[in-house]
Amino acid sequence: MQRLTRMVRRRGNSMIELRARFLGVACALIVFCAVATADEGMWLFNSPPSAALKSKYNFDVSPAWLEHLQKASVRFDNGGSGSFVSPHGLAMTNQHVGTDCVQNISSQAHDYVKTGFYARTQAEELKCPNLELDVLMNIEDVTARVNAAVPAGASPEAAEKARRAVINTIEKESLDKTGLRSNVVTLYNGGEYQLYRYKKYTDVRLVFVPEKQAAFFGGDPDNFEYPRYDLDICFFRAYENGQPAETKDYLKWNQQGAKDGELVFVAGNPGATSRLDTMRHLEFLRDRSNPWGLSLLFRREVLLRVYSERSDENRRRAEDELLEVQNSRKAYVGMQAGLQDPALFSEKQAQESKLKDAVESDAKLRAAYGKAWDEVATTLHTLDGIYADLSLLESGQAFNSKLFEMARTLVRLAEESQKPNNARLREYSEANLPALEQELFSDAPIYDDLEALKLGDSLGMYAEMKGMQNELVEKVLAGKSPDARAEELVRGTKLKDVAERKRLAKGGTKAIEASTDPMILLARLVDPESRRLRSIYDNQVNEPRRQAYAKIAQARFAVYGKNVYPDATFTLRLSFGEVKGYEEDGKQISWTTTFGGAFQHAAHHDNEAPFQLPASWMKQKNKLDHSTPLDFVNTADIIGGNSGSPVVNRAGDLVGIIFDGDIQSLVLDYIYTDKQARAVAVQSSGIAEALKKIYSADRLISELGLH
Amino acid sequence: MQRLTRMVRRRGNSMIELRARFLGVACALIVFCAVATADEGMWLFNSPPSAALKSKYNFDVSPAWLEHLQKASVRFDNGGSGSFVSPHGLAMTNQHVGTDCVQNISSQAHDYVKTGFYARTQAEELKCPNLELDVLMNIEDVTARVNAAVPAGASPEAAEKARRAVINTIEKESLDKTGLRSNVVTLYNGGEYQLYRYKKYTDVRLVFVPEKQAAFFGGDPDNFEYPRYDLDICFFRAYENGQPAETKDYLKWNQQGAKDGELVFVAGNPGATSRLDTMRHLEFLRDRSNPWGLSLLFRREVLLRVYSERSDENRRRAEDELLEVQNSRKAYVGMQAGLQDPALFSEKQAQESKLKDAVESDAKLRAAYGKAWDEVATTLHTLDGIYADLSLLESGQAFNSKLFEMARTLVRLAEESQKPNNARLREYSEANLPALEQELFSDAPIYDDLEALKLGDSLGMYAEMKGMQNELVEKVLAGKSPDARAEELVRGTKLKDVAERKRLAKGGTKAIEASTDPMILLARLVDPESRRLRSIYDNQVNEPRRQAYAKIAQARFAVYGKNVYPDATFTLRLSFGEVKGYEEDGKQISWTTTFGGAFQHAAHHDNEAPFQLPASWMKQKNKLDHSTPLDFVNTADIIGGNSGSPVVNRAGDLVGIIFDGDIQSLVLDYIYTDKQARAVAVQSSGIAEALKKIYSADRLISELGLH
Repeated sequence: MQRLTRMVRRRGNSMIELRARFLGVACALIVFCAVATADEGMWLFNSPPSAALKSKYNFDVSPAWLEHLQKASVRFDNGGSGSFVSPHGLAMTNQHVGTDCVQNISSQAHDYVKTGFYARTQAEELKCPNLELDVLMNIEDVTARVNAAVPAGASPEAAEKARRAVINTIEKESLDKTGLRSNVVTLYNGGEYQLYRYKKYTDVRLVFVPEKQAAFFGGDPDNFEYPRYDLDICFFRAYENGQPAETKDYLKWNQQGAKDGELVFVAGNPGATSRLDTMRHLEFLRDRSNPWGLSLLFRREVLLRVYSERSDENRRRAEDELLEVQNSRKAYVGMQAGLQDPALFSEKQAQESKLKDAVESDAKLRAAYGKAWDEVATTLHTLDGIYADLSLLESGQAFNSKLFEMARTLVRLAEESQKPNNARLREYSEANLPALEQELFSDAPIYDDLEALKLGDSLGMYAEMKGMQNELVEKVLAGKSPDARAEELVRGTKLKDVAERKRLAKGGTKAIEASTDPMILLARLVDPESRRLRSIYDNQVNEPRRQAYAKIAQARFAVYGKNVYPDATFTLRLSFGEVKGYEEDGKQISWTTTFGGAFQHAAHHDNEAPFQLPASWMKQKNKLDHSTPLDFVNTADIIGGNSGSPVVNRAGDLVGIIFDGDIQSLVLDYIYTDKQARAVAVQSSGIAEALKKIYSADRLISELGLH
Repeated sequence: MQRLTRMVRRRGNSMIELRARFLGVACALIVFCAVATADEGMWLFNSPPSAALKSKYNFDVSPAWLEHLQKASVRFDNGGSGSFVSPHGLAMTNQHVGTDCVQNISSQAHDYVKTGFYARTQAEELKCPNLELDVLMNIEDVTARVNAAVPAGASPEAAEKARRAVINTIEKESLDKTGLRSNVVTLYNGGEYQLYRYKKYTDVRLVFVPEKQAAFFGGDPDNFEYPRYDLDICFFRAYENGQPAETKDYLKWNQQGAKDGELVFVAGNPGATSRLDTMRHLEFLRDRSNPWGLSLLFRREVLLRVYSERSDENRRRAEDELLEVQNSRKAYVGMQAGLQDPALFSEKQAQESKLKDAVESDAKLRAAYGKAWDEVATTLHTLDGIYADLSLLESGQAFNSKLFEMARTLVRLAEESQKPNNARLREYSEANLPALEQELFSDAPIYDDLEALKLGDSLGMYAEMKGMQNELVEKVLAGKSPDARAEELVRGTKLKDVAERKRLAKGGTKAIEASTDPMILLARLVDPESRRLRSIYDNQVNEPRRQAYAKIAQARFAVYGKNVYPDATFTLRLSFGEVKGYEEDGKQISWTTTFGGAFQHAAHHDNEAPFQLPASWMKQKNKLDHSTPLDFVNTADIIGGNSGSPVVNRAGDLVGIIFDGDIQSLVLDYIYTDKQARAVAVQSSGIAEALKKIYSADRLISELGLH
């Protein structure tokens, strides 16, 4: 995944405190907007920005309009967004969201990431080994029930346990009752809890994807930049019972595309923002977690690049992961630059002081919420103390390997399954098991050489960080060098075999305890210490922090009213904005680009990679209408996770698809600005032109009603 | 510089404790040899391994043979080795040693790194802006004088001061007396001091260099690997008074090249090894300095790669530096893997225990030297405490910029010049000033964009490591973001102008104090703290460590006799070995490769970069004799800094030129092995074939006597 995909692992714990945020190289002159003005906001579908839309754009959000958009929107569980674009389950997202699947169904003989893919008939559509699409059906507020379950004055441990129990229970009840995927979502960092129910599709097949050279034209240099000329799209089809799913809520294709100045909406799943974080929390990101994340990313990027350059097949094997790492690195660099910019920091400081002053000047508010900021700080102090170990062990950075991840999942699955549902770790609750099993039993390819390389490097890093004489390091390495140990573990494990994973999962603790598989033994070896850290995190960091943020959220509601949207949580949100260019270095940057511009951009770089258009484009160069719009920008409020989000007009028709934000948009992680920050999207008109004239994708053209 | 070039800054302090060592991904099965057996050793020219050569190879090292080789050998002050190959100052080294100069004389219009260069006439030879060649004329032992100057029982501060004073004085006296470049070299980590006198050449001109595609064929993937197919050569000419220098000691070209099984010698300047380091010292490298160095390198590699990929001109500007970083990274990864290999560590432990046991079992030795190991440990504890700050400030990692380096040099030059010679920092002593000024006043190009990028990134890293609220960080950033501050510094400084640097150098403290140049002001801002750290390093780390290692050296002499070579010090050494293949994964790896193999290797990788041979090779493919030997391996003991070292046969004739070591050779930093470790060289026969049939370099062919 790359660009606006959320850097996400499907099970939450592996990315504890390492969420990707997207924040840009902040120019010192950016003028930040005040809270919730302009086109700011990633709004909840059950609390849309009706007043702002009415006053600024004279637009009435009708419930029917909203429900249609909600049900036509699709969440990709690997970290992206998308939408249905036909009544037969046809879903569109970005190529870079689809790459995960495209790579998994590729082989040395058929590298579809490179060549692209088009199923000329329905029978040719290729099933993804591991992809789930979720459609949000309804939302229920469960804040009262969750909070009521936590006894007043309970210790953090008791509170965490009670809260986890009631959440697991709510999800299980909902699943049993509705059959829908049910997730309790924590909003406002703990201010509210809402139950989201999704219809899910697990039989998902690839229909069309262009060559990476077309989708990611300009490569890493152009990533997070604008002007852009990318056809970053991909079509999948959701199936039910072996037949294309019926999807009556789908977006109608507008063949004109987005127009300059028009109001547009974006429906998608922004992954994570930090706009409501306290100053101390932002400092923690700046001084602790971002530097940590950056150093991991630099190391991984070099490792994967070096591996990739050894051969074309290596490149193919590591491609998706390398892109994810590069994308995250570019985002982290930007995040860090923003946090190191005094202008942004003092603007955020002013916002915090304003709210704190309001709380301090009201005795009732002060008594109820006045200490919350210090309480957040206390949890961060605790987190600081365990941060490295938590990341190495519980987040698994010391064991950078799919096989280790599977081994740990099997070990914990056996243990957690023995507990009643309400006492389980969140990711092993009954409601979460189907998703977990889908990933665990996926037959996506695993490459021994790449696994051993990554594991060896991360074991070496672990030894560097903790010292070779650390007791657990010594046990983990078992008297071998990190590389030799990794080789032994990867060659020795049988977990590559899906049947073996199923056998161990079915066999429960007995099978796990009897197993002599070296990777299972390793996972068991580190699990006690890893769980100990996890429990400190859950009890002493996450729970009290959630309680403190709940107070700050209440304070914010009391001072500003309820017209505040929560930070992003990889759940469906509505953003809006205007199609609009901007000024940069005294130059006006156009709101749209064209096919002609793409050819010029390539020529400007001597058509050398990554600025090389694919042969299919060069061949049809003269057939294309060079004035057709290709990509465009707008002021909607988006962030990583919004990749593939549909862009619709007032009528609710599809005019584009989000695939990136410009470099100035990366501060949106912390603060909204529309001075130069823009969401970048592919034009629906550009897609139509390409499908017709470059790819002659007749079946798609007809299904989309293009002519 | 790359591969076996020493990662060196011309003035010692910038690389304090960050010397590049080359140490490989150690295979657990490597059987390490005991001390000084087989073809081990980087021997001093005034203490050659006569006995070993006699007994193993029945070779008599005559003084004349030795002196001729010594005076035909050339040190490249940017970190490499080479040799004279004609009586008219023609010197050969590796392309990757020459790249520094080749890039400096290139421009956007003429990228000689890419296209290669050949001066068809003497008039066309191009002067390097900043390159010095040194020829070792004689060596004088000054151990007694240095030690006598240090009063017994002196405090570390007094001892350091006295030792520095006497060394500066010795060098100045020698320079005045002989006019030769004079350097006191510390051997055995402090066990001996020897005065090396060099004839130096500062007018050096480029004669011939092949395309980078030929010299670095296989790129980073093949770096430190074998079999290899690289024509990694470059010819310069030393001038005196505007005329080619007369160099009566030059190596005769052997057109047959090296033969399987023959005895060969390598004369070159290995940069740094750690073979005599104590175990605690090796642990320090493993747990502290290597991880630190690696994280810097990963960060820089990503930074420079991203910059390079934006355009062809960017790639050209950053090329040499990126190669240096990649080469160092590959070496550091290998070094670290070796140190993390328990097999290597326990072998080293056994060596140390053997020596310590011998000392302990002799009352006299115990009394004199028994505490030395603990004394080394104490200095490392002190170093640990200042390590990060020392690296950030004194080694300048927080200010990764040529312009900052110049500003600091100017600031210190003014201050140090006011002191008597014997009280100056080593790098500002009278004897060292010419080299310092040659670099300071070089007109090598400086690129604002690259400077600002590097400086911004390193300032950001500095802020991450010390925290944004650190007092000095705050002063350095002056209320701006790291990127904005770097931009302001780079655009604002006038130090790009050589005349301005000369003006400030001439103006002394008065000019420096009056200067409002932002880079000068920055250098002045950090200098007090930087000097404070330097002085702790000099007094509390380096001096007592030197004293402790002097004891260990004496103990070693007492136990094993004087037949021990010192660790590498980037001074001339003699190594020897056999031309010989090896076995790997059950396969016999041939002692030589051929031109035919090069074409096969390219074809195997679909001729895609970096496995793409240049057009000149493809064009002459049919003209070449494909069976001509191209590269070969031998067992000589080499390390980074040996790049470009001549390989000679018994007759003292040139049969090859070192350009790399294989991956198994990288453990040579810590321990010698000849199981699979090999030095990799270009065949003299291969060079002749290429000059004749690919490059038609008639003038060179005739000067070298090839026909």
